[in-house]
Amino acid sequence: MGGPTTLQEHIHQAGVSPVERLHALIAADMATTDRLIHARMTSGVALIPDLARHLIDSGGKRLRPMLTLAAAQAGGYTGGHHVRLAAAVEFIHTATLLHDDVVDESALRRGKVSANLMWGNKPSVLVGDFLFSRAFQLMVETGNLAVLDILAGAAAVIAEGEVMQLKSANNLGVTEEHYLKVVSSKTAALFAAAAESGALLSGRSDEFVCGLRAYGENLGIAFQLVDDALDYSGRQALMGKTVGDDFREAKMTLPLILAHARAAEGDLPFWKRVIETGNQTERDLDRAITLIEQTGAMQETMARARAYADVAKAALKVMPDSDIKRALADIADFCVERAY
Amino acid sequence: MGGPTTLQEHIHQAGVSPVERLHALIAADMATTDRLIHARMTSGVALIPDLARHLIDSGGKRLRPMLTLAAAQAGGYTGGHHVRLAAAVEFIHTATLLHDDVVDESALRRGKVSANLMWGNKPSVLVGDFLFSRAFQLMVETGNLAVLDILAGAAAVIAEGEVMQLKSANNLGVTEEHYLKVVSSKTAALFAAAAESGALLSGRSDEFVCGLRAYGENLGIAFQLVDDALDYSGRQALMGKTVGDDFREAKMTLPLILAHARAAEGDLPFWKRVIETGNQTERDLDRAITLIEQTGAMQETMARARAYADVAKAALKVMPDSDIKRALADIADFCVERAY
Repeated sequence: MGGPTTLQEHIHQAGVSPVERLHALIAADMATTDRLIHARMTSGVALIPDLARHLIDSGGKRLRPMLTLAAAQAGGYTGGHHVRLAAAVEFIHTATLLHDDVVDESALRRGKVSANLMWGNKPSVLVGDFLFSRAFQLMVETGNLAVLDILAGAAAVIAEGEVMQLKSANNLGVTEEHYLKVVSSKTAALFAAAAESGALLSGRSDEFVCGLRAYGENLGIAFQLVDDALDYSGRQALMGKTVGDDFREAKMTLPLILAHARAAEGDLPFWKRVIETGNQTERDLDRAITLIEQTGAMQETMARARAYADVAKAALKVMPDSDIKRALADIADFCVERAY
Repeated sequence: MGGPTTLQEHIHQAGVSPVERLHALIAADMATTDRLIHARMTSGVALIPDLARHLIDSGGKRLRPMLTLAAAQAGGYTGGHHVRLAAAVEFIHTATLLHDDVVDESALRRGKVSANLMWGNKPSVLVGDFLFSRAFQLMVETGNLAVLDILAGAAAVIAEGEVMQLKSANNLGVTEEHYLKVVSSKTAALFAAAAESGALLSGRSDEFVCGLRAYGENLGIAFQLVDDALDYSGRQALMGKTVGDDFREAKMTLPLILAHARAAEGDLPFWKRVIETGNQTERDLDRAITLIEQTGAMQETMARARAYADVAKAALKVMPDSDIKRALADIADFCVERAY
């Protein structure tokens, strides 16, 4: 019982988290980005900033814009457009969260009541559209068509991933391949584009840009795998998030896909009932967690996340040694370790 | 009984509509735009083109992309990017329709069952996001940051207009000023941007570009005023659209705002009941139509539409005489006359 009991304590005891370390390395740019985010989410229509603020000021780590700023800084960029790009990346992320809340009827987002529940579907869709438009206005201001191309492409891929994910509910037939495609699209595409566009802005070699993109993409996949694992883990509760959200939505994420694939004959009717019919009782989540642990599905999901994090770290070889590079590498490790 | 009984017959008897005339003048570009629209709405995720096609192939006139192509052609543009811009404009329009269906739970869109009702909110939001992203990809391909700026700005204004419009339901306090701001934003902004961006692509003078923008903006306002009038008109039924959609949603459009402002003391409880409480019976629509006619609200709405159409026509003075100019002017007239 002497060990750390919350993530915060854990971080405190272990020193500063690598996310905080990276934040400190790009603190001035992050502060400028934050000011820009708040300046650009204003509107003569008061409901827009009110609703947007609900997500934007809800304590998210701004990991995606941090990737953009870190990539630009690591690439030696000295101009002022990287903060516009970083703000645009955060707006795109926020817009997808708002639209995801609408469609998933999720009750909690970052531990707060979702915008959707507070304001209704209608405003959430429209404010998402507004932020998405603002993102493109910010990108236009960079005057860089290549970064516009990357982020417009990523936005299309994110939407494709979200549509693909619709099939993942109540469907025991979802394959690992389908799952990984969804994760690459809905999550990793923006991580990849955030890092790539920042690198591109710095005008460095294709190798550098591709390396940063690969880092972002693999980090994004690892990040989502861990997120999906945490949904069946007690660690999640310590982080102020509910456990079992995916389970209650009968969404086939990797822990479930693997547990079902490895299920004993006698457990198949359980999976059929809770996932295919969605007919769940209070105690089913506990049984699901037990089966996910027993079949090694949890361990395997984490091992995969570890492998993607390692690929992300390896992709950083295009960068010379620096504090930023070390922080990025440690973030990949931290992304996996936060689950333990 | 000998008169035309459908709009189609009316057009047939009166000759070719100016919309069809403009279409004929830019037929090759429209065909290319159409091919591009269909090519770019494809996706490895089959649901996306299936759902998009539902709106895109539902017989819309493609008025907005026509404005883009006409403006580019009138400006003497000889490149190939105007079709990309036109396709982008249609995608933005389609995305807003999809998101509007989600939020309004409207049962009919262009006489077909709305995508929302067929596929649900979730896919409609996401496919809208996909088309919106595709629009920006197409704009990036034009390599023209000025047109990107115009359309990204228009997209933000459209979202603001839609959010403003939320206040218009069940609210007898909505002013004419609020209504006109909503119309300028949610409808006229895209008409204006469609015409302006086409003109801009042609590299003509600011005066020319501003003139085309003013044409689009005023045409858009006239168009929406007539649309809102038609919702209380028997003509609407002849066009295959339902009458009274706005009324059933208790949405304060100009005919209602004026009828309520001019209402006799004895009619105020009626408006209070049907709009503020939304408590309506079958026969209330007929009474509303009668009151809108009796107070002159219908006539006044149409007179305003006429005035905006006239401003649109006057804005065309920046163009030398041509078949396109005459067709654009006649479209402004036709937009109003279709209601009679």
